[in-house]
Amino acid sequence: MRTSALILVTNDDGITAPGIASLITSAKQMGEVFIVAPDKPQSGMGHAITINATLRINKTSYYSGVSGEYSCSGTPVDCVKIAINKLLPRRPDLILSGINHGSNLSINVIYSGTMSAAVEGAVEGIPSLGFSLCDYAHEADFSQSEKFVKQIIEDILKKGLKKGVCLNVNIPKLKHDELKGIKICRQAGAVWEEEFDERLDPYGRPYFWLTGKFVNFEPGAQDTDVWANENGYISVVPTHADMTAHETIAELTPRYQ
Amino acid sequence: MRTSALILVTNDDGITAPGIASLITSAKQMGEVFIVAPDKPQSGMGHAITINATLRINKTSYYSGVSGEYSCSGTPVDCVKIAINKLLPRRPDLILSGINHGSNLSINVIYSGTMSAAVEGAVEGIPSLGFSLCDYAHEADFSQSEKFVKQIIEDILKKGLKKGVCLNVNIPKLKHDELKGIKICRQAGAVWEEEFDERLDPYGRPYFWLTGKFVNFEPGAQDTDVWANENGYISVVPTHADMTAHETIAELTPRYQ
Repeated sequence: MRTSALILVTNDDGITAPGIASLITSAKQMGEVFIVAPDKPQSGMGHAITINATLRINKTSYYSGVSGEYSCSGTPVDCVKIAINKLLPRRPDLILSGINHGSNLSINVIYSGTMSAAVEGAVEGIPSLGFSLCDYAHEADFSQSEKFVKQIIEDILKKGLKKGVCLNVNIPKLKHDELKGIKICRQAGAVWEEEFDERLDPYGRPYFWLTGKFVNFEPGAQDTDVWANENGYISVVPTHADMTAHETIAELTPRYQ
Repeated sequence: MRTSALILVTNDDGITAPGIASLITSAKQMGEVFIVAPDKPQSGMGHAITINATLRINKTSYYSGVSGEYSCSGTPVDCVKIAINKLLPRRPDLILSGINHGSNLSINVIYSGTMSAAVEGAVEGIPSLGFSLCDYAHEADFSQSEKFVKQIIEDILKKGLKKGVCLNVNIPKLKHDELKGIKICRQAGAVWEEEFDERLDPYGRPYFWLTGKFVNFEPGAQDTDVWANENGYISVVPTHADMTAHETIAELTPRYQ
């Protein structure tokens, strides 16, 4: 293990969330830690960046034993960008995002601020890991999976990761003894079936809350992250920013010649 | 051509942007048009959704000859979700997003609100097209490429698109006669090299503007969207929500067994 590794820690639930506190505890045992995380919850921000407004950075001191700590008024992707370009003494060796309070399995990768920070790290060519615990509670128990989180961080610090690739790690809500291990998977095909909860404000005008139900298109597919999680495994999906549907290129090409 | 096609039009520059006006003009010639678009600019919103706040919908009347028209307080992805689930009489046959004022080539697909609306349509299993003109000006000339935009819409209405796939269409800023045609491509590998413009507010506190330079990692690769655009072609990248780095699964699997 490289004790001199520079590790950036960020998240999307905000710099004071219990999930990032747990990740910081693990990261401190692996290297020198800098924290740059949103000053407020940023769930569902996807790969949003702040281009029509300004960004604010504040030095904070929530955590002990870290080399630097800042809250940022922007999105998780903003945090990664400004950390690398403005706040850190050099490019980090590793970026850790999370631990998210709630699942980022399957299609959630495109909506997730946690994973967008990791994908941004991958685009920058830095090994990056996004962690999520499939428990939305504020008081979720992050200690049950700590050993596995450290194992993955240690492995990536030692052996690296293909350039442009990050990992989407999802941990089922289980006791340590019930966790069966780590499984490399692909992202399951799924959709959120939305329902909009329509209400009236005090002035009689309608407004809407987005709600929905996660529908897995591939319930039987044992190579998917959803299957792994449902069967007691910590799922790890290698993830990149290339959204090209490569297999469709050959089919479409003759239609436009 | 199916004259009864139900077409949803959205964008990320806001419901009054010239780019969406141009797309609406084309769409009206192909079917019955519903517009659900953001009530303000939403550039750079990526795949953000509104989950910690409420959504407002307003009936508007900026355009003639359309079957329904609404502005939405949320992101482009919110617009697609609420259109499908709440506002349209039935599921649309086609979703059109744009025309964006500015490029969504290459890596921009992950930051783009325009493309996120199209990707959301693909996740819903609806053929979806995101259009961008590589000209950031408000007064950009959308008429030069109108013929090609219509050709693509017509082709997709007639022949469909693989389920789960949408198209990322980028139009170079050229006169009609200079446009060489349409080219099916893959997303070029690239990165934004950020610089943060640091300023002081009137109270002496620093704030930052995100700026950056687009760096193409594959300048010579003729199968990429950036190359196609630079060489006079309208680039079309089949795009999907699967961000799995499939080729990395076999390499990583033995490390966690």
